[in-house]
Amino acid sequence: MRLPLIEELVQNLGSDKVLTGEEIKVRYTHIWKMAEPLKALACILPKTTEDVSTALKICHSYDQPINIHGGLTNLVGSTETLENEVVISLEKLNNIEEVDDKSRTITVQAGVVLEAVQNAAKEKDLLFPLNFGAKGTAMMGGIISTNAGGLRVFRYGMTRNLVLGIEAVLADGTVINSLKKIIKDNSAYDLKQLFIGSEGTLGIVTRAVMKLVENPKSRNSAFVAFNDFDRVVDFLKFMDAGLASTMSGFELIWNECYRGMTTLPALTKPILPKDYKYYVLLESMGSDQEEDRNKMLSLLEEATTSEMILDASLAMSESDLTWFWTMREDVHPFVSQCKFDQHFDISLPIPQIGPVIDNIIIQLDKIKEIEHKFVFGHVADGNVHLIIGKTNDSQELTNKVNDIIYSPLSELGGSVSAEHGIGTHKKPYLKLCRTQEEIKLMKNLKMAMDPKGILNPGRVIDI
Amino acid sequence: MRLPLIEELVQNLGSDKVLTGEEIKVRYTHIWKMAEPLKALACILPKTTEDVSTALKICHSYDQPINIHGGLTNLVGSTETLENEVVISLEKLNNIEEVDDKSRTITVQAGVVLEAVQNAAKEKDLLFPLNFGAKGTAMMGGIISTNAGGLRVFRYGMTRNLVLGIEAVLADGTVINSLKKIIKDNSAYDLKQLFIGSEGTLGIVTRAVMKLVENPKSRNSAFVAFNDFDRVVDFLKFMDAGLASTMSGFELIWNECYRGMTTLPALTKPILPKDYKYYVLLESMGSDQEEDRNKMLSLLEEATTSEMILDASLAMSESDLTWFWTMREDVHPFVSQCKFDQHFDISLPIPQIGPVIDNIIIQLDKIKEIEHKFVFGHVADGNVHLIIGKTNDSQELTNKVNDIIYSPLSELGGSVSAEHGIGTHKKPYLKLCRTQEEIKLMKNLKMAMDPKGILNPGRVIDI
Repeated sequence: MRLPLIEELVQNLGSDKVLTGEEIKVRYTHIWKMAEPLKALACILPKTTEDVSTALKICHSYDQPINIHGGLTNLVGSTETLENEVVISLEKLNNIEEVDDKSRTITVQAGVVLEAVQNAAKEKDLLFPLNFGAKGTAMMGGIISTNAGGLRVFRYGMTRNLVLGIEAVLADGTVINSLKKIIKDNSAYDLKQLFIGSEGTLGIVTRAVMKLVENPKSRNSAFVAFNDFDRVVDFLKFMDAGLASTMSGFELIWNECYRGMTTLPALTKPILPKDYKYYVLLESMGSDQEEDRNKMLSLLEEATTSEMILDASLAMSESDLTWFWTMREDVHPFVSQCKFDQHFDISLPIPQIGPVIDNIIIQLDKIKEIEHKFVFGHVADGNVHLIIGKTNDSQELTNKVNDIIYSPLSELGGSVSAEHGIGTHKKPYLKLCRTQEEIKLMKNLKMAMDPKGILNPGRVIDI
Repeated sequence: MRLPLIEELVQNLGSDKVLTGEEIKVRYTHIWKMAEPLKALACILPKTTEDVSTALKICHSYDQPINIHGGLTNLVGSTETLENEVVISLEKLNNIEEVDDKSRTITVQAGVVLEAVQNAAKEKDLLFPLNFGAKGTAMMGGIISTNAGGLRVFRYGMTRNLVLGIEAVLADGTVINSLKKIIKDNSAYDLKQLFIGSEGTLGIVTRAVMKLVENPKSRNSAFVAFNDFDRVVDFLKFMDAGLASTMSGFELIWNECYRGMTTLPALTKPILPKDYKYYVLLESMGSDQEEDRNKMLSLLEEATTSEMILDASLAMSESDLTWFWTMREDVHPFVSQCKFDQHFDISLPIPQIGPVIDNIIIQLDKIKEIEHKFVFGHVADGNVHLIIGKTNDSQELTNKVNDIIYSPLSELGGSVSAEHGIGTHKKPYLKLCRTQEEIKLMKNLKMAMDPKGILNPGRVIDI
């Protein structure tokens, strides 16, 4: 005996698009928890925007809570589905509809995987600049809904800066179609901003027009050492001015993290000696491999002479580039060395990062259950990641670590999430970086756009 | 006998901040209409955010419509105050609160003029990249509220991309304070997006933290001729790839406009012969004047050899640069030659621009009351400006011109406003580029945030 809601969904969408019972149990809620079967009332697999609209109209009429699934790579609990929820998974909306090399745009459905977008752009000698670890799994709908960041934000911006047009379905099934390719549009409210970064609580993104850029013809990197954070900031400004907008990466790595990244089972050997306090992995993408490398070299020489930097290694070949970036992107050391871990992606004003992290580490060092403090970050964007390795998973210890890392943020105008979002995991800490008035306004928006609270309920904010 | 509303405003703010009667008549609603005295119930001149909040609380309790004034440079009728409205003018909120050269941010009040922001940045060897003709008058609050664009959007983005933090006051006087300096912030809804580009209908922007960038060390320009629009697009892609992110301007000028710009009373003599169909004024800003000029030269030589471009002139000196850009920014020819005029700032997908404008001109040529069609644009952003010179100012002719220029936009996914906004003048045409569902959602947002409809009523959308 099926619920009337399920009956109506099946009648309107067809049974192949509405999974129930045993069909659901082979699915999961996160790529790190594939062994745990999905629990939900049903899982809808729409093939078109109209399917999404139909599903939402029906669920809306039943006040039925919905949890939206994409690539299931989020890090804040957003897709931990509850038993009373209906899942809408966008995996079958997976067409790249158009790559327009003259407008330099790509039109995609929500279920297209990031790497497929990157590859489709590359085929037309263009670049989709968004890039991060989960690129082989993360889907565009989720990427847009969470305003994903990653490694090249400094130069190309967050996902928000790359979305030109959007199609989204509101809680009641209304389709908001604004799939424009234009770069500038001041025709009244910029509604797409509502769907970007609101983590699926205001609407379901079904399609988007994304901006592409010309594919850079060169890529150069250097690895540089410091003992003083102020010199890191000086160097950031110096290289940014000297490289004149071709700088595409400026990744800071703290000493303990660098040692972890270059010690077995890590994939790579060290690039510079292991006794400096900070290391920067720098990247430029320009138009001429040799010219651009010489430019970077002469800037590094100038920075050495002025004692801004203490040591540096310039990638001289494709294999050096691979070496440097494999080190940065290798997660083996963290996974293997941490029995239990907590991940953070805080944001701070750039000049505060050095002293704040120093102080956080002093406090974490006092806790004997903490074994590792891997700190690295997209520091040109003010974004620091911390991976804290612990001997146990007690709630008390988790809370203690959260308190140490989040408590400085409020006073300094930082954020508990630079890029991962709030989901359910960070909801209790949202008030540290958003005022009561801001949270009230968010609730007002949520009530206006989803008065029944059916879209990703309990995520981000409570109403 | 003063109205109770005015009495309450005076009591709570002080009479120096509440102008009435004769004090109002010396004021005006637009810098182009200084001779027409302002008509309003009162004009409030807040000196602090608290003053703005107090004024709004009182007006809100009386359901009193408000019109917000800044530099009064808008082009769409937004500040054409009605007699029953109270003006809140932000001109006394004119402090630059901080320039932080390490975070590369500037914190400003809403009444600070754009040029003052540019100058304050320059003093710390930084650049505030926003730039447009009204820079000496336009104020930051209005610039943010209208998401202003201008000459360097292609590289640095619209105002939206430059706002890091915002403080705004809601219709009921609630202060939303989110004056953060951080670049990445995914802590729930990005509320600042609501106030950017909504033309003061959802809240009054009182302060903001704006992003600064390193001041480029070089500036180079070239002036290039074409007869075929497709070659313009090829050249855009070619130069963008070749200049590797240092391209900062790519202004297209149509033949009739170029002739106007270089014929007395225009300030400048022609750069290239006057018989090409299109001209591009190109700008790059990099790190080394001579190296970057040589780079531009070699790219121009390559483009000439491949017959992508027909003619080119490279600025070889500071005085050449002044010559080229004075020509582009000179408004004398338009002002002097047009008896009556209509201005447009439409947005189109880049490859469509050539044929669409060709067709518009064919249609305008059939109307004998039309004497001039000056067309130019920030074509790398898909933004075309048209200034149509007419023999008379009849509503019928105005409507006819609007119809010719706006009617192709709908089908092509264009916009009736790339940068000027909607205000009152373009409200009837909004439906050409936004769907019914979008406009309904806009009204829903307006009702949620300003249910009494007191903020800039009748502007942008009707509720």
